[in-house]
Amino acid sequence: MPERRERALDIASRARAEAVLAAHPSTVAWLTGYVADIETGPSPFALSPLALVAGGGPPTLVVSRDEEEAAAATGCAVVSYPGFGLGPMNPVEGAAEALERTVGGRMVATEPGALPASLAARVSWVDAAAELAAARAIKEPDEIEKLRRAIALCDTGQKEARARAAPGVSEIELWADVRAAIEVAAGGRTPLLADLVSGPRTEEIGGSPGERTLTEGELVLCDLVPRRDGYWGDSCATIALGEPNATARRKHRAVREALERTVEAVRPGLRAGDLDELARSGLDYPHHTGHGLGTAWHEEPRIVPGGKTVLEPGMVIALEPGAYADGEGVRVEQVVLIGEDGCEVLSGHELEL
Amino acid sequence: MPERRERALDIASRARAEAVLAAHPSTVAWLTGYVADIETGPSPFALSPLALVAGGGPPTLVVSRDEEEAAAATGCAVVSYPGFGLGPMNPVEGAAEALERTVGGRMVATEPGALPASLAARVSWVDAAAELAAARAIKEPDEIEKLRRAIALCDTGQKEARARAAPGVSEIELWADVRAAIEVAAGGRTPLLADLVSGPRTEEIGGSPGERTLTEGELVLCDLVPRRDGYWGDSCATIALGEPNATARRKHRAVREALERTVEAVRPGLRAGDLDELARSGLDYPHHTGHGLGTAWHEEPRIVPGGKTVLEPGMVIALEPGAYADGEGVRVEQVVLIGEDGCEVLSGHELEL
Repeated sequence: MPERRERALDIASRARAEAVLAAHPSTVAWLTGYVADIETGPSPFALSPLALVAGGGPPTLVVSRDEEEAAAATGCAVVSYPGFGLGPMNPVEGAAEALERTVGGRMVATEPGALPASLAARVSWVDAAAELAAARAIKEPDEIEKLRRAIALCDTGQKEARARAAPGVSEIELWADVRAAIEVAAGGRTPLLADLVSGPRTEEIGGSPGERTLTEGELVLCDLVPRRDGYWGDSCATIALGEPNATARRKHRAVREALERTVEAVRPGLRAGDLDELARSGLDYPHHTGHGLGTAWHEEPRIVPGGKTVLEPGMVIALEPGAYADGEGVRVEQVVLIGEDGCEVLSGHELEL
Repeated sequence: MPERRERALDIASRARAEAVLAAHPSTVAWLTGYVADIETGPSPFALSPLALVAGGGPPTLVVSRDEEEAAAATGCAVVSYPGFGLGPMNPVEGAAEALERTVGGRMVATEPGALPASLAARVSWVDAAAELAAARAIKEPDEIEKLRRAIALCDTGQKEARARAAPGVSEIELWADVRAAIEVAAGGRTPLLADLVSGPRTEEIGGSPGERTLTEGELVLCDLVPRRDGYWGDSCATIALGEPNATARRKHRAVREALERTVEAVRPGLRAGDLDELARSGLDYPHHTGHGLGTAWHEEPRIVPGGKTVLEPGMVIALEPGAYADGEGVRVEQVVLIGEDGCEVLSGHELEL
């Protein structure tokens, strides 16, 4: 059994429950490797997948019949309910019945912020959402491998952004090229969270690509967060179109140095708040310094002012200091894996202006 | 008040509730015009938006602070809770408190298959999900306008697919061009459900674009379902690369004729099951003949065998007969708006092979 399932069962046991019922797609992916489609919102034919982890054998996934084959390919047991078809659509009742049958009267430790009320009504449960979210912070080797592959997609996307960003191109056209490069490299559709903004929009920290046309001498801020095999990569670079002005160069030097000293300082035993303070010195950005990365695109440990989490080996964190003022913003970001002593930088993209 | 809010309040009243609490993003968009981001799954900083519709004034949206401005732009009242920031992440408790405050002890008619258990625990509720879903079937003029605009994006995407599909191109490369055309036309990121398969994959009805390379003489099946302003378009065409074989031409003629006679037959008073039977005559496809389209990409009325729904003016339905056999599949699809007498075809894309 992967160590994370044992850790999840410990959480259940401390909550006086007999099993874990994962309801959040990130927790389901973490415990089973089963990755739900997310790009087009809730399906009319299925609820979000559920996973029951009890002692002994593999977890049981509760999914619609359409997902049965993919769910079984993870090595998990599968209980399914009717999905896409010609009959009446009632995935809520289908999932509720399948869940009740699967849980069979056991008390479960679950995530009631993700579990629909109709399903929660069919089982005896206790809330263990915060503990499960915290447990996800330490990655196992198979997870680190998936994160490396997701970050490789970031590198591909950042390279394309740098190659294609040019005066006369619109943000949404640049976006299309970047997304295409990532999806062609991945060999299929790839969920992608992103900031892609240009010129004065860079001062707003982030935003979705729009119709604005890029102009000589300005900056493009590109933060790419693709999901591959259920794990999210993260990356940011700021690209100058032509010769950057002196202020942009100064900001860039400051955030680049902040990132370097932060990466250099990362080691087990350090508190998140202390790392945040080190990064922030001489800078004044309104957002976090960093965050964990895994089956969610922002998770523990959060690198924020006063953050009490103590860094541990196996944590994977994205670090992203920035500087935003006078109509222009700069941010650079790398992902690191915390080892026994220091950290390994997983990101390979260019950080220059 | 838009008629649909009155219809929703009637549903609440019949369920002996004082208000409607919309919890499914499709129902929230339908009642308020507020469209939630969906492309990157559940946010760590916010739950899915909620909307309370009571008598009198505009609905109240319960959203994270990050969504406050966009939510207020719909003309709705807004109650917000902390979102993205430097403090602890606890959107579940934030949303639960905000919801409790907003509902204030009223009994609500809601969607417990979409409402998280943590939120449902804070209000008195009764299940009205099926009635709300059924009520969405009749569209008002502002909704029809949004559907037209979403279908215009389908036309753009289908045109690009036809222009770019060529031997030597991979499915995922073709997908990148199609998606780029749609997003550039929309001026921003656009959720997009799609089948994009080639050659023998067309027999499998649908599927996500992969690494397969298109080859001379084979078919490409392209079903594009983009969301614009919260409303989904739908469209399908089958494209031959070079000269199609005789079997493909025969299949195409049969499904094209099935679509034509179905569109011609659509009128108020017709039962969904009878329309399905007419479309299916001489064909043997395993899926529905059609479905409603709105803030969900598949909703009432479903055009399926035995379907009892009686068609009414204001319904918008996608019709999509197909033929799949001997290693090759063909499907064509158009969207129609049911009027007082017959229907108007909203789709403008090419249906030829």
